[in-house]
Amino acid sequence: MRETVLGEKAYASLADVPEEIDHAYILVDTEAAVAAVAQCAEARIPVVSVLADGFAEAGPQGLERQKTLVEYARQSGMLLLGPNSMGVVDTRSGFVCTTNAAFRIESLEKGRVGVISQSGSLIGSLLSRGQDRGVAFSTLVSVGNEAAAGIGEIGSILVEDDGTDSIILFMETIRNPSKIAVFARRAKELGKPIVAYLVGLTEEGQALSASHTGAMTGRVEVKQAFLDSLGIARVDHFDSLLEAPLALRQKTRLTGRPSTVTVVSTTGGGGAMVIDRLSASGVEIAPCSIRSREALTVSGIPLGHGKLVDVTLAGARYDTMRTVIETLIADPATGALVVAIGSSASLDPELAVQPIVDAVMQASIDTAPVFGFPVPFAPCSIKLLEQGGIPCFRSVESCAETIAHLFHTSVVPTFEVEPDQFVRDAIQDLPSGNLHEVEAGEVFRRLGIAAPAQSVIFPGECIASKLNGLRFPLVAKIVSKHLPHKSDAGAVTLGLESLQELEQAIEDMRVAVARSVPEARIEAILIQEMLHGVGEALIGLTRDPLVGPVVTVASGGVLTEIYKDFAIHPAPVSFETAKEMVAKVKAFALLRGYRGHAEGDLDALARAVVAVSRLGSIEEVIEAEINPVLVLPSNEGVVMLDALVRLK
Amino acid sequence: MRETVLGEKAYASLADVPEEIDHAYILVDTEAAVAAVAQCAEARIPVVSVLADGFAEAGPQGLERQKTLVEYARQSGMLLLGPNSMGVVDTRSGFVCTTNAAFRIESLEKGRVGVISQSGSLIGSLLSRGQDRGVAFSTLVSVGNEAAAGIGEIGSILVEDDGTDSIILFMETIRNPSKIAVFARRAKELGKPIVAYLVGLTEEGQALSASHTGAMTGRVEVKQAFLDSLGIARVDHFDSLLEAPLALRQKTRLTGRPSTVTVVSTTGGGGAMVIDRLSASGVEIAPCSIRSREALTVSGIPLGHGKLVDVTLAGARYDTMRTVIETLIADPATGALVVAIGSSASLDPELAVQPIVDAVMQASIDTAPVFGFPVPFAPCSIKLLEQGGIPCFRSVESCAETIAHLFHTSVVPTFEVEPDQFVRDAIQDLPSGNLHEVEAGEVFRRLGIAAPAQSVIFPGECIASKLNGLRFPLVAKIVSKHLPHKSDAGAVTLGLESLQELEQAIEDMRVAVARSVPEARIEAILIQEMLHGVGEALIGLTRDPLVGPVVTVASGGVLTEIYKDFAIHPAPVSFETAKEMVAKVKAFALLRGYRGHAEGDLDALARAVVAVSRLGSIEEVIEAEINPVLVLPSNEGVVMLDALVRLK
Repeated sequence: MRETVLGEKAYASLADVPEEIDHAYILVDTEAAVAAVAQCAEARIPVVSVLADGFAEAGPQGLERQKTLVEYARQSGMLLLGPNSMGVVDTRSGFVCTTNAAFRIESLEKGRVGVISQSGSLIGSLLSRGQDRGVAFSTLVSVGNEAAAGIGEIGSILVEDDGTDSIILFMETIRNPSKIAVFARRAKELGKPIVAYLVGLTEEGQALSASHTGAMTGRVEVKQAFLDSLGIARVDHFDSLLEAPLALRQKTRLTGRPSTVTVVSTTGGGGAMVIDRLSASGVEIAPCSIRSREALTVSGIPLGHGKLVDVTLAGARYDTMRTVIETLIADPATGALVVAIGSSASLDPELAVQPIVDAVMQASIDTAPVFGFPVPFAPCSIKLLEQGGIPCFRSVESCAETIAHLFHTSVVPTFEVEPDQFVRDAIQDLPSGNLHEVEAGEVFRRLGIAAPAQSVIFPGECIASKLNGLRFPLVAKIVSKHLPHKSDAGAVTLGLESLQELEQAIEDMRVAVARSVPEARIEAILIQEMLHGVGEALIGLTRDPLVGPVVTVASGGVLTEIYKDFAIHPAPVSFETAKEMVAKVKAFALLRGYRGHAEGDLDALARAVVAVSRLGSIEEVIEAEINPVLVLPSNEGVVMLDALVRLK
Repeated sequence: MRETVLGEKAYASLADVPEEIDHAYILVDTEAAVAAVAQCAEARIPVVSVLADGFAEAGPQGLERQKTLVEYARQSGMLLLGPNSMGVVDTRSGFVCTTNAAFRIESLEKGRVGVISQSGSLIGSLLSRGQDRGVAFSTLVSVGNEAAAGIGEIGSILVEDDGTDSIILFMETIRNPSKIAVFARRAKELGKPIVAYLVGLTEEGQALSASHTGAMTGRVEVKQAFLDSLGIARVDHFDSLLEAPLALRQKTRLTGRPSTVTVVSTTGGGGAMVIDRLSASGVEIAPCSIRSREALTVSGIPLGHGKLVDVTLAGARYDTMRTVIETLIADPATGALVVAIGSSASLDPELAVQPIVDAVMQASIDTAPVFGFPVPFAPCSIKLLEQGGIPCFRSVESCAETIAHLFHTSVVPTFEVEPDQFVRDAIQDLPSGNLHEVEAGEVFRRLGIAAPAQSVIFPGECIASKLNGLRFPLVAKIVSKHLPHKSDAGAVTLGLESLQELEQAIEDMRVAVARSVPEARIEAILIQEMLHGVGEALIGLTRDPLVGPVVTVASGGVLTEIYKDFAIHPAPVSFETAKEMVAKVKAFALLRGYRGHAEGDLDALARAVVAVSRLGSIEEVIEAEINPVLVLPSNEGVVMLDALVRLK
């Protein structure tokens, strides 16, 4: 038993510590850590961080250990960070409670950006890269395994901190989606941007995350859709994590302005780079308005032709630059302004940088936001610009993806889904397990989705007497819970033109099914009128192990998989969201009239997406799908041709 | 007339200069510049650069002026740079002949990377960003409008320079593809990488390039395919321009090694980032081989499980790191090694960086190449590593795209196409202009592409007597130069089961065509046996205004356009290249057996691509296409169902 550790007085037990303890950081090994957390619980220490590994990421035994920790935390009401947590740093109070070597720097700058990371080493890398470029942090938290408190819980605390303007997330998985949703909603209310970098884009990366912090992996697209739905700015470039927070704080200045960017440049090549990458990111470029162009021409400043406001021609002079910036930011036709600054940024900031700063500093609050991109290496100019309230980008890639996020408008959905009584009624009186097609079809019909005119013929019933006025040609299908893949089993026949053909087809299908799936019990025969649409779609509801219920819409078929051409969103969704989802599916270009193709009723398709998504609110529904959905011409609706529902 | 300019003696005319002039940089305005070039030509000055604008980019009058310049250059044999050239810098001799302000830096470092840029301002930005990160240059050239000497010509000079190891290109367009091909081929012979950044990825960017240096724009994909075909490493991230040259010099060390990357890391999160982005770039990740794993276990170094060689567990210590690197680079199962270094890179280089340097410095020349990626900001570690021969990346994005290029193997084609006598024979005896289907089909048949069994019935001939033993069902088409879109005009009928049906169909088509395209002259009726394949394709030859003849293969149909799912390559192509093209088309996944789909004869499809591409060697062929091409099951070949050829 030592008297001191690194010069600080050491105690044999918590009970010996004379002061009240605010935060315990447990640095001992796995087994000892569990015992230490128990002691902290007993001593009612409010915050406890645990470094040790050997928990959820280390198999069933580790998982049991982790449950024990969580139980201690729950009982004592402690905020537990980790296990696998590299700790917490608060720059304001100088509380540096981490094992991350990066914090051994000489001067830890105080700033207004919060960091929450599932990887402990990354808080050090963000600190180091941030300090290099003048991005300083308020609080950095390594949440590790998130056994009790994770991104959602810590985020909800951090977002209320007056000293924190925006929050960076480094994520390897999603553990508690509803808590993250609460955090994201509050951040949006407070106008504090959240920027996230997600590892696990590929199967390789996912497998690695699993081994790294015990993360359970979900489908990449679901994780992305989840973050997107919450208005969290997901970035592809790591350095955008550092540049997006400041830039996205300018979002409020865009209110009432067009969703376009005007690019001003003192370098033709640099301006072309910016316009190129912005356009590739889906940002609309607007040239200088006619009004501004005329005003500048009167001032004797030529702007070149084309979309780039090219100041090169007028020379990179203080007066020219200042007039151009003042004119453009005061112009209501300007959305956001991006200034690509050439060599003068590195050598003559007084010519091309100072006038931007002066113009912005003296402008009223309702002018357009301005962003800077020095094409050369120009840290001094960036400092000058950012001190003048002009967020800057060090790379054109970061500029493009951040500006694209600036224009994203998302309605953060209420993620905690209330069970939907209307939907609950729709699945009432139905058996559990796989429903057969007639039962499944009934569920969707109750939700308001149309089906073809049909008749169900039960065993022993006379076919001719159950035609119920259906018009030929007809489709006949064998109804059985045991035939999820009807076509493969020979249990569907299309284009039946007469009663005789129908009877023959039913007989043939019975024989085929008896041969292909002998154990299949035939519940009934379903006959439907054969319809034709202008296109087809698929709508499905699944439950993702990480994110929960999600709804997917696609055109269906094997090419959907090959091209990954689908839209996915946490369920349920609103009509607006469903319309955005439909708009994202490239194959529906045909139904939007591409190359003279007949237009389809995509609004009706979106309404069907809403209906299917509502099943997400009912836990009993494990899976549901309508596929194919026939899309009829505009204003004529959609019709489901097959339906599948799996209940608990 | 001044005696001096900036302290240097000034002369009234070239004739007054007592010394021999090596290089004239003309800084006067447009009209005066033309006169000055004329004087330089007369004085036989070997190299002349022109800054002025107002030439090809400024409309027909400017283009005339530019032609005048080129004529002066041609007559006197001068090497003309520009117009619109910001000049030339050679760091070795201290020759700084540029108007770019960036070169006013205190110390211009000497290096081994050459730069050729179509944008003058970008040579300054590359200099500035390069000097920041220890990348120094040999010669930098702003080629401007490339009126006479462009990337190809200057590249061919620069690549022979012993002091230049690799060449960076900043490109806005492609002006002289055959000269660029000569340069690229030579660079490949000499093992000197060329790395290019291309502006004009989007229509916005293209339009801008056009206005900027008078570039004629071509289709984005064609420009990309052209550079790719030459083995030029096209990068998407601007900063990769600075990092790729050194890294790609390691390519020779990969000979005989697997095309995989093993990732070693002292940071789990950083390792996951690297594996994630490498995988997303198509790079295959290999775990530590069993042999190395055993050797390291014997040395007491645990590596974690999974694909990442995670040294974290063993602690970032000198001995551990050195043993791991030595073991892995000596292992023939290692392809390339990427080391993601955590916080120790910024604070304790002696622990995690020095051992890598020592291991590599003392290894034999046939060990695997090693690359470094410090996850934090760590310029000192990068310097240490690069001085030790280990190329580094500052961003994971640059790391991923550069490493992907490391594994690209390309056979640089002979770009200057010799007219192909065999193909010339194939188009012999044919009329000029649009060929009708029978004539066009004959061209492709002579090139070895199969067609269905068929018969041509000329006006007045008896249909029954010309069935020639064809088997029903048949297809009948009206043959006319005036019907490029036969289906729309009602000039095609499928599935004819008898002579009677055939005769009726021909009659009906005549009526339909007379109504839809009254001016169409009917040359004949083509009847063909109706065939079925397992898939369809399109093969086309076009002439790009910038790049020249290109061949395209796709699955055809409207979805090809929507998904941009095609492969394009300068024509003609070899069988190997054609196979790679077919492999790139995602829709052909079906014909590769995706999800149990019947496999198609994709080798035969590749042979058809080769055949069509050979038409590129004959200038008279403006455009050629077979669409659809029916792909038959494996080893059964392909059959063209329709053909189109446009001759001059």
